[in-house]
Amino acid sequence: MSAAAARAPGPELDVAALQAMLAEQARIGATPEGGLHRLAASPQDGEVRDWLSRWFRDRGLREVVDPVGNQFGVLEFAGPRAPWLLTGSHLDSQPNGGALDGCYGVVASCQALDAIRAAIDRGAPRPRCNLAAVNWTNEEGARFQPSILGSSVFAGSIDAAYAHACADAGGVTLADELERIGYRGAGAMPAPVAYVELHVECGPELDDAGLAIGVVERWWGAVKLTVELTGRQAHTGPTAMAQRRDALYGAALTVEAVRRLADDANAGTASDRLRSSVGRIELEPNSPNVVPSRVALWVELRSPHSDVLERARQALGEELKRAAAAAAVGATVVSESLRSAGAFDAGLVELAEATARERGHAPARLETIAAHDAIAIASVAPSVVINVPSIGGVCHHPDEATRPEDLIEGAHILLTTLWQLCAKIG
Amino acid sequence: MSAAAARAPGPELDVAALQAMLAEQARIGATPEGGLHRLAASPQDGEVRDWLSRWFRDRGLREVVDPVGNQFGVLEFAGPRAPWLLTGSHLDSQPNGGALDGCYGVVASCQALDAIRAAIDRGAPRPRCNLAAVNWTNEEGARFQPSILGSSVFAGSIDAAYAHACADAGGVTLADELERIGYRGAGAMPAPVAYVELHVECGPELDDAGLAIGVVERWWGAVKLTVELTGRQAHTGPTAMAQRRDALYGAALTVEAVRRLADDANAGTASDRLRSSVGRIELEPNSPNVVPSRVALWVELRSPHSDVLERARQALGEELKRAAAAAAVGATVVSESLRSAGAFDAGLVELAEATARERGHAPARLETIAAHDAIAIASVAPSVVINVPSIGGVCHHPDEATRPEDLIEGAHILLTTLWQLCAKIG
Repeated sequence: MSAAAARAPGPELDVAALQAMLAEQARIGATPEGGLHRLAASPQDGEVRDWLSRWFRDRGLREVVDPVGNQFGVLEFAGPRAPWLLTGSHLDSQPNGGALDGCYGVVASCQALDAIRAAIDRGAPRPRCNLAAVNWTNEEGARFQPSILGSSVFAGSIDAAYAHACADAGGVTLADELERIGYRGAGAMPAPVAYVELHVECGPELDDAGLAIGVVERWWGAVKLTVELTGRQAHTGPTAMAQRRDALYGAALTVEAVRRLADDANAGTASDRLRSSVGRIELEPNSPNVVPSRVALWVELRSPHSDVLERARQALGEELKRAAAAAAVGATVVSESLRSAGAFDAGLVELAEATARERGHAPARLETIAAHDAIAIASVAPSVVINVPSIGGVCHHPDEATRPEDLIEGAHILLTTLWQLCAKIG
Repeated sequence: MSAAAARAPGPELDVAALQAMLAEQARIGATPEGGLHRLAASPQDGEVRDWLSRWFRDRGLREVVDPVGNQFGVLEFAGPRAPWLLTGSHLDSQPNGGALDGCYGVVASCQALDAIRAAIDRGAPRPRCNLAAVNWTNEEGARFQPSILGSSVFAGSIDAAYAHACADAGGVTLADELERIGYRGAGAMPAPVAYVELHVECGPELDDAGLAIGVVERWWGAVKLTVELTGRQAHTGPTAMAQRRDALYGAALTVEAVRRLADDANAGTASDRLRSSVGRIELEPNSPNVVPSRVALWVELRSPHSDVLERARQALGEELKRAAAAAAVGATVVSESLRSAGAFDAGLVELAEATARERGHAPARLETIAAHDAIAIASVAPSVVINVPSIGGVCHHPDEATRPEDLIEGAHILLTTLWQLCAKIG
């Protein structure tokens, strides 16, 4: 379409529909605390996918489900070989997590596409590209590790076979669970020309600054490790203290060391240079009167500085050796992945910012410490994340909330950014 | 019976039957590592109970199952109001535990009763008492806490209603599981005049000393606590280190402190005055990228000295406060039980020792650090535990093993001790 056409009356957001969809999805897997418990490929995830699938069909979008369960709703304006724009996020949640994390982005993407469709039906210029909304599989990495799994398979950085074989704590594979809920598809989508993701901020920057819109410029680097400590199963009574090979004692020393790495790196600095955590643990045999024989720990180290991250990773290796020696156990890093710090597409960042300014906002430039699917997609297509504030910066907790006016503003800016991209392609 | 009759040809142990029963029970819940995985009230426990039930019936013993699932096989020689002798142990195991722990005592009890029955059939003097073999419910405390649960209900120190409500990690109650495997009975047995338990030693004393028989004179005291640490669920990335209320970090400091309590108490002593452990942990939400909000720890402190135990318990309280403050979390002792150190019946200890000496042994006097059902029964009847060695002192591990000749000697001494008790009553 011409530049003149792009200035013609454009799409209009249906605020009531946006709010209705947000409320509908939040009922599927709702928890008594007001949160969402909708683990990847669970029956609840199946239910919300069916709901999204019905919405796609009702609004004239063609559904494509790929082998790892990524669920696309495609709106075709141009031929099958035309470039296409992608927008979306994820509908899976943490255990008793927030009801907006990910879901807001999927719902706002749907409404953006529907508003564009309606505008064209009313005579707005037809884009020379196609558009799709997407619900990525297992963004959270709560049930299956690693996180941002579906988008990483789409981007080619993780094999579909590897993703299929990922097992939850009960040993059930993602492939089997996708099969069970009916979302192990056979479809395929090529790389888009741009990916725009709208997400509530996983952090307090916007809320602290009293701003409604942020555009994410960069992401922190992260090292994620699974560490295994192996001791020897024995009775907790008759086994002399000197004879114990207690994997949990070794794990406790490791957890303490992981925290100390961050405390040391951040000493005397105004803001964190390193964040560290152990969020998951597996213990065998996990009986009150048996010395634990095996403990697995899921460790994360995050930093915007590659040298800080590298030093922390090296120090963790030394700490592991120390913990293993003190507890007389073995310690092995059984898996490790590095996500290097990086930057989103500068052009998309500027476009989103300009769009926000046109609506009267003074958008913040943000760094994201949390992972987003856009980080995976950035390796195959120009990508960007637009943020709205989370009150108090709450994330991965049922109390997570965003003011309704901020949710509306974010959706407006996603829609306008996508419409501007249509104009650029046209 | 008269003293003269007691000197008449007595019962003879059927060694082949003993070994066959040991092998049969070890097949039910056998693990690839050569151990036993037969958690209390599991389907495997149901299967081995059915096997024992058939053996009772085949050998003329009347089965009595009480409301908490304790399974008695009664051999009646005298009227229903006559005194009775009890012998037995337990058929439940730790996760991938040893195949003799508990089971050896039940099987040897069965063979002892059968040998006495056969002797009387052959004309040996009829005892003026009844005898019973017992399989106590949930001795291990692996699936349901506390341990020695069935025998404690029998002894009246724990209510049946409390035991019924005990739930495993999946929230399933003991009552429901007993119902499911068909061992929630309605029978009752009065207190016996004596209880004799044969058990492989849970420790290395006999094996280190090269002795085949030990008689347990005393037991250590123990404090068992469940501690809960409560923090706040949050994203592990965007949440500043200073804002974290990480329940797992608090738990790690606690595990480290529990170990230090023992290391401090034992510093400079030749043998342990205090043993401590954390064998079980529960973590919520247990997701790699969520700061843990709740951790429960199962802590044990054990000592033969009440003052050492009391000091350790107090110090643990201080350590918990310190850990909670350092991690900015709450810490509460949600349950706590004290088992005071104590002594078995001196007469039974001497009788068992004399019996062992008559067979040419130099029996060791032992202290048990592990709990046994006999500790619970000691509050309502004179009780004793006879030990045979475990090679290398291995316990609660699939490698647990005892030399066949030691197993035979132990069973001989159990049988003779019971026969002597029959003579005393007679």
